[in-house]
Amino acid sequence: MVGGGGPKSFFGAPHRRAILMDNTAELTAGALRSNPEDSLSDARELFFARGYPDWRSLVSSESALPEGERIDYLTIVTPNDAHFGPAEAALGTGIAVLSEKPLTTNLDEARQLQALVLSREVPFLVAHTYTGYPMVMLARELVMGGAIGEVRKVEAWYRQGWLSTRREADGNKQASWRADPAKAGASGCGGDIGTHAYIFIRFAAGLHAVRLLARMKSVVPGRPLDDDFTVLAELNNGAIATVSASQITTGAENDNGVRIIGTTGTLTWSHIRFDELEHCVGGQPVRIYRQGADTSYLPGSIRPYLRLPAGHPEGFHEALANLHRTLEWTIRRARGEPSPQPFAHPGIADGVAGMAFIEAAVQSARGGGWVDVPRGG
Amino acid sequence: MVGGGGPKSFFGAPHRRAILMDNTAELTAGALRSNPEDSLSDARELFFARGYPDWRSLVSSESALPEGERIDYLTIVTPNDAHFGPAEAALGTGIAVLSEKPLTTNLDEARQLQALVLSREVPFLVAHTYTGYPMVMLARELVMGGAIGEVRKVEAWYRQGWLSTRREADGNKQASWRADPAKAGASGCGGDIGTHAYIFIRFAAGLHAVRLLARMKSVVPGRPLDDDFTVLAELNNGAIATVSASQITTGAENDNGVRIIGTTGTLTWSHIRFDELEHCVGGQPVRIYRQGADTSYLPGSIRPYLRLPAGHPEGFHEALANLHRTLEWTIRRARGEPSPQPFAHPGIADGVAGMAFIEAAVQSARGGGWVDVPRGG
Amino acid sequence: MVGGGGPKSFFGAPHRRAILMDNTAELTAGALRSNPEDSLSDARELFFARGYPDWRSLVSSESALPEGERIDYLTIVTPNDAHFGPAEAALGTGIAVLSEKPLTTNLDEARQLQALVLSREVPFLVAHTYTGYPMVMLARELVMGGAIGEVRKVEAWYRQGWLSTRREADGNKQASWRADPAKAGASGCGGDIGTHAYIFIRFAAGLHAVRLLARMKSVVPGRPLDDDFTVLAELNNGAIATVSASQITTGAENDNGVRIIGTTGTLTWSHIRFDELEHCVGGQPVRIYRQGADTSYLPGSIRPYLRLPAGHPEGFHEALANLHRTLEWTIRRARGEPSPQPFAHPGIADGVAGMAFIEAAVQSARGGGWVDVPRGG
Amino acid sequence: MVGGGGPKSFFGAPHRRAILMDNTAELTAGALRSNPEDSLSDARELFFARGYPDWRSLVSSESALPEGERIDYLTIVTPNDAHFGPAEAALGTGIAVLSEKPLTTNLDEARQLQALVLSREVPFLVAHTYTGYPMVMLARELVMGGAIGEVRKVEAWYRQGWLSTRREADGNKQASWRADPAKAGASGCGGDIGTHAYIFIRFAAGLHAVRLLARMKSVVPGRPLDDDFTVLAELNNGAIATVSASQITTGAENDNGVRIIGTTGTLTWSHIRFDELEHCVGGQPVRIYRQGADTSYLPGSIRPYLRLPAGHPEGFHEALANLHRTLEWTIRRARGEPSPQPFAHPGIADGVAGMAFIEAAVQSARGGGWVDVPRGG
Repeated sequence: MVGGGGPKSFFGAPHRRAILMDNTAELTAGALRSNPEDSLSDARELFFARGYPDWRSLVSSESALPEGERIDYLTIVTPNDAHFGPAEAALGTGIAVLSEKPLTTNLDEARQLQALVLSREVPFLVAHTYTGYPMVMLARELVMGGAIGEVRKVEAWYRQGWLSTRREADGNKQASWRADPAKAGASGCGGDIGTHAYIFIRFAAGLHAVRLLARMKSVVPGRPLDDDFTVLAELNNGAIATVSASQITTGAENDNGVRIIGTTGTLTWSHIRFDELEHCVGGQPVRIYRQGADTSYLPGSIRPYLRLPAGHPEGFHEALANLHRTLEWTIRRARGEPSPQPFAHPGIADGVAGMAFIEAAVQSARGGGWVDVPRGG
Repeated sequence: MVGGGGPKSFFGAPHRRAILMDNTAELTAGALRSNPEDSLSDARELFFARGYPDWRSLVSSESALPEGERIDYLTIVTPNDAHFGPAEAALGTGIAVLSEKPLTTNLDEARQLQALVLSREVPFLVAHTYTGYPMVMLARELVMGGAIGEVRKVEAWYRQGWLSTRREADGNKQASWRADPAKAGASGCGGDIGTHAYIFIRFAAGLHAVRLLARMKSVVPGRPLDDDFTVLAELNNGAIATVSASQITTGAENDNGVRIIGTTGTLTWSHIRFDELEHCVGGQPVRIYRQGADTSYLPGSIRPYLRLPAGHPEGFHEALANLHRTLEWTIRRARGEPSPQPFAHPGIADGVAGMAFIEAAVQSARGGGWVDVPRGG
Repeated sequence: MVGGGGPKSFFGAPHRRAILMDNTAELTAGALRSNPEDSLSDARELFFARGYPDWRSLVSSESALPEGERIDYLTIVTPNDAHFGPAEAALGTGIAVLSEKPLTTNLDEARQLQALVLSREVPFLVAHTYTGYPMVMLARELVMGGAIGEVRKVEAWYRQGWLSTRREADGNKQASWRADPAKAGASGCGGDIGTHAYIFIRFAAGLHAVRLLARMKSVVPGRPLDDDFTVLAELNNGAIATVSASQITTGAENDNGVRIIGTTGTLTWSHIRFDELEHCVGGQPVRIYRQGADTSYLPGSIRPYLRLPAGHPEGFHEALANLHRTLEWTIRRARGEPSPQPFAHPGIADGVAGMAFIEAAVQSARGGGWVDVPRGG
Repeated sequence: MVGGGGPKSFFGAPHRRAILMDNTAELTAGALRSNPEDSLSDARELFFARGYPDWRSLVSSESALPEGERIDYLTIVTPNDAHFGPAEAALGTGIAVLSEKPLTTNLDEARQLQALVLSREVPFLVAHTYTGYPMVMLARELVMGGAIGEVRKVEAWYRQGWLSTRREADGNKQASWRADPAKAGASGCGGDIGTHAYIFIRFAAGLHAVRLLARMKSVVPGRPLDDDFTVLAELNNGAIATVSASQITTGAENDNGVRIIGTTGTLTWSHIRFDELEHCVGGQPVRIYRQGADTSYLPGSIRPYLRLPAGHPEGFHEALANLHRTLEWTIRRARGEPSPQPFAHPGIADGVAGMAFIEAAVQSARGGGWVDVPRGG
């Protein structure tokens, strides 16, 4: 694990819980903080088998170990600008990677990583955690199986309220780096959560944007990057889409979701009711799929990702653990070991697409008109 | 209309709106208040064609008019102890009746009315308004059509909070007569709203109680009648049931509902989401029937009771108007006039059953054990 | 009443119920259909006191009657292209008007009506029925009272599914005129329901658009007008807004709503839960205002619009009746008669604003960029 | 850990995840299955540090190890009849215990364990997992803090549908032992889930039953134990209560919950929306506390039990992990080590009370009348 240490990390501990909970993996190697001494002491305190002062030493030492002793994969939980370095290094030595999103801070770096993944054939996942919820996975399976006909429109959204005041000015570490273009990239809200919303279009609807128009606003006075982000898009099959992300929806929790509108039905998922998927068909009762119900109706591709008997809710940790599970199974398969079939969770192409999407959005927001999304978006 | 006048009547105005809204009936004759002068002036102010000082003169005058000029039916909106008199008088002259519930204040009077209805063959309805909601009607149709198999258990409830303080001591008219055994009968909460809950068992599940055990409590100090009422029952097909009614659920609105559990499925309706009916079947997505949806799936027996295009909610007034509609259509049919098929809304037998249910409950609550429900319960 | 007759009218009967239910008005004069004979026979069958062959004769005859005998106001329930004529005629003779939306089929006509209303000082209301729901009225009062601070963003939406197939090709009358530019105006979805969504911004947030960008699409093949309509807007106080309307959200009922995001809180209302208003404030429990609750907390400006005791839902008919109530009270006040204070329901300025909004949207959608909203938008 | 091995265990794996996820504990010693060989091989496969053939050898070997090397506490995940043995043995050697519920199969054994816990002063917890949800903990804190005044009534329920067919006849292991009086005790549904519901009364409302009346039914033909269980109770402060548990609510998931009605407010929690707590007060908007919201409003006693930033749902595993956390902190405090304040999760007295409650219910159901709950209920 690179990053994720210290008392103020949002997602270090969740990744550790996701890794540990299934009793199939251990915390092996850690370079958890930017300061080398903190990095070593955090690794000790958090029971990592091996601590390192920084990611460079982690990657060089681990890759020098014989296979079977070295880490199976590297989890990257750093601010956006520190994803590329360790990812490139790990991939270069053939070590698999699970990286936090967005993939990088610009499209060029994203494509460099993609080239490495493809040439070295190394498993790579991007932590679009919401795609790990079984009900989002079910949305994908239903769309792919034709349950709503041909997709005509997709609405994806992500509403938060935590930046409705200028918390970066109060020394909030999470708010600070997100408001700093050098660390976050050219888009604040778009990069941080707009990419999550966009990936729903790729993952659940199986489509991608080819042309878009964006409005990016800094609503809170004094904030250099956007905290409100809206995109109108045209998708590769001719469908239309909207992607709305906002960090200034005062009082909102973490309300992301997607509505996929097809010729014969509509699917709606919202994180606020993460354990439900709504399926509307005209002239029929609304169907509510519930993760907690007797899930004998779930497709075989999803059942290996459930842990509890019917009626016992699994939440964010398990969604994240499902991504680790997919990577673990992908690695096992690459080694020729037996493993369940891993699900199609977001990989390097989705990471690149997220960056292309943001780059087009930034360009459009500046010009005020429609632009083409770069190749791979 | 008998009763329902004055500024403090709860349900006089709703009945008037229910009568008027469909443009198929008029306010013809009114004896709206206990004081003769108020009665006459209220009838004028409320645009009744003919005002009367009291229900006796109303019934005698109207019954003396030639058919076609006299009222089609009498709506009774008085406190419980003043249901029997006008109902008996109207039935005796062959005038149809829509009476507020509970039917009377004791079982004997209820049976007298039943005898009159049967011997004179006069249409008679009891205002169990909640059975007028299309989604409750759908529950009945689904049960009757076998959608949930054989019924094994029914839970019916009615929770209110408005009597969680001693409002009868503050001069609240509605609270006062409900707390007075002479006006309300032997049960307060049970008679007022427990009967509503019990009728769900008869109407929606098509069953009735044969044996029961009751707990009746006066929770608020100083109140002579029960304000909390719970019954365990055995039904005629061997199924079990619970009927819970409470007026002291602080902050509750008007939360009545029913859950009907069958061998193959469960139906749940709650007044809080009156426009939805939930149908659970193991191993399948939950189905939500919505009154406002494209209702082409509703059975033909219910569609004549809908007024608005899909997606436009109808509420309590329309549920009440549906009972008036059923009575109107029943009268038309009795006269050999063309009319849609009236739905099986609660009639005299249900009114009698409600009184038998209450009488058994009072007896059980006193003795603390199981008792048989009198014939007709 | 002009229009609203015949077996296929959507909203004629709802308006009649809204007029009748409160027992304060009667159906006086009707010119209900385009064919003069049908118009006369419908008026008879629907118990109008006076039937007319067409709106011209209705207006000329009624205006010739002495005050006190002629109609108090004219309700216009025709397709969009037939709003202007009867409205202009009625206003010209000083008769008040409640017109269906959108006000006209173009901005010029709208301004002509506005000039008449202002010069003749005649009461005029536009039937933006959703503003008649008490919870939408409460949203306005909370915003005006500062409950969410300064408004920063408004999201308004309207999702329907009934045009997800080409029903206009099947002879559906409601679908046909809505798909015909000559009858509907330059925008299909935008004019029909986009205006409803936009008016939430004016009514509930008290703001209006000054600049906008629109995407208008005909998603269903062969449809000449837009069936999906999305607008990004800048409001007069600098806030941003989105207005999304769609008729191709397969399986959706009538899901319109608004989210108003302020510096200190967010209000959300959706027609699917029309009886609730959600108020989110960071660091506090979510507050759910419920129309059916003990509504002693509602402001005095709203309470005269409630009809039922707590816990008894009022729906679409009552929302519509509330607009009639506002117009009735406005007329009474104009005559110097006693009346409760009418609420600020949408009037002529809102009707003009809706047309300006649509006109700007059509212009933007053609050009693909941002445009200024004409004066009065 | 005793029990919880094998492919058919419901709750072995959840306990292991709960133990591992927080990175503060390890799987040390296991006697996971009834067959000694399976027990040893399962311990190996599940990465326990030390495997044992049975619980006797586990307790004797572990207790012989020096403190610091032996297990900190024993988790018991066996069928009901196998709780007592290992619990008694562990307590006898001073080893702390977290036992699945119900505590034992009869009241006598429960009291023996209680005597041991008291005399030896050993930490002991019963796995009433639902009390580990932060919103249930909040309910308790609100009641204790006077937020709803004096408690007048409690409704507790638990509805499942998985035994609506005779699954024990199909070889379902979980269904089989639950239907066997020798393994499950004198009550099936009551013991298995009725105790969960009853504990809500003790935990969230801080009250207990002193007198009760029960109906216990075997609804599914051929089942020797009750699958439907209803209790009316009187509580120690004079309040009334109902406890309803059912395993035949076809299609129900795992719908347990509690409604606590006080003189000034009502709290309602349901497992179906485990992340919400509803607080109703007359004349005020409903307040929805959400676990996922900005939880700065949560009392300090609950915050140490939250793991994720606002808006990220924690589910059943975390609720269970919260009980392990409480036991761990209790042990640390008992040793004089620093630790956060453990919450008042159910301990030995609650386990005894559950057995007293069931014993009284069985007695009442046989006799058909009210009975006193034995001391400690």
